[in-house]
Amino acid sequence: MSKTIPVVKDIMDANAQLAAQVRAKLDEAGVLALNLMASPGAGKTSVIIRTIEALKDEIRLAAIDGDVAAIDVERIAETGIPVTQINTGGSCHLDANMLWSALPSVDLESTELLLVENVGNLICPASFPLGTHYSVVIASVPEGDDKPYKYPTMFKGADVLLLNKVDMLAYEPFDVEYFRRGVEALNPGVAFFPISCRTGEGFDAWLDWVRAAVGRAVRDDDRRGRG
Amino acid sequence: MSKTIPVVKDIMDANAQLAAQVRAKLDEAGVLALNLMASPGAGKTSVIIRTIEALKDEIRLAAIDGDVAAIDVERIAETGIPVTQINTGGSCHLDANMLWSALPSVDLESTELLLVENVGNLICPASFPLGTHYSVVIASVPEGDDKPYKYPTMFKGADVLLLNKVDMLAYEPFDVEYFRRGVEALNPGVAFFPISCRTGEGFDAWLDWVRAAVGRAVRDDDRRGRG
Repeated sequence: MSKTIPVVKDIMDANAQLAAQVRAKLDEAGVLALNLMASPGAGKTSVIIRTIEALKDEIRLAAIDGDVAAIDVERIAETGIPVTQINTGGSCHLDANMLWSALPSVDLESTELLLVENVGNLICPASFPLGTHYSVVIASVPEGDDKPYKYPTMFKGADVLLLNKVDMLAYEPFDVEYFRRGVEALNPGVAFFPISCRTGEGFDAWLDWVRAAVGRAVRDDDRRGRG
Repeated sequence: MSKTIPVVKDIMDANAQLAAQVRAKLDEAGVLALNLMASPGAGKTSVIIRTIEALKDEIRLAAIDGDVAAIDVERIAETGIPVTQINTGGSCHLDANMLWSALPSVDLESTELLLVENVGNLICPASFPLGTHYSVVIASVPEGDDKPYKYPTMFKGADVLLLNKVDMLAYEPFDVEYFRRGVEALNPGVAFFPISCRTGEGFDAWLDWVRAAVGRAVRDDDRRGRG
């Protein structure tokens, strides 16, 4: 067993190193990148598409879609923004190496906001930082209000938490206060937006957060002398 | 890279060997074991609890609950049947070694049906056979009708497929025929039961399947001279 631990550490070190490389390349180009993570069916692709539709006329967008099988990428491509597919070949998460390898397919100089859709999984993606600027975790009402208690690492690492499908609160025994207490215990003060991709409820606040984050990235970029 | 492949093969070989050991031990004791797999929030624990409540007076039951954090085990224990917790220590799936290590905690001689709850994940659990007799995959309506297309390995390997939360079909844009076509393309003729843990709809057919499977296991056991 003692031989296993150094190997895992090597993998994590290599991932961290590549994540730093990804971040440097994004920062050099003035691109803000979000890593969107969720369970299967929580609505990652729907959040991405609704976000693109709302922002594509004011922010230059691109997307990278990671999945074990490619069907979401076609839905995203229909929005008209450039999208790159990462097929993980069965792996249950993206890692920094996959993102690093996909970056040459993205026209970074023409992009202000890069949306990276991770693989549908509440466990492993949390352990593989990609070099993106913010981790956006999407929970959804039908999954149940116990998810922060059962998948603590994912909720602990979130910079932003979206609770999707709030239009289903009328039909589901979901206790929003219990959910929030679980989140706050792990990640006090995390940005929290209840939303519904179906009705659009709550999207304005989330879009304002995205606009502000992109604005900060652009200002940083201006300070470095580009723009 | 060429050194990675043999390592993965070794892991898979070791898992297959331990799974065979688990199976032999279960068969020797005349225990039928089910491996229940699903996304987070699809209703694994609810299916297990409702199944236990319906069958505990006619079948001797035990459960093993695998999770990254322990909260479902308490809900299962409330049914009064013996339950063992496997904490995967962050791993996103059970493997045969974890189940093998947990078996001494189960009184196999007093058990006819062992329900094994895998970690909430639609990807990796499909790649790690445990030595259980049947793989039961639970999908749920709010996750969306595209799941067989996106997570083919899981649906391909199912012996039984439960579609949970069918009470939500009234509120969700879920095309049951599209879902079934995806399943049938991967796994023709798989046993399929639409159910609702909330209303009990469809449970009778699923329970009949369980009774029949336990009956077959008991008859096999009788033929081997125990009973």
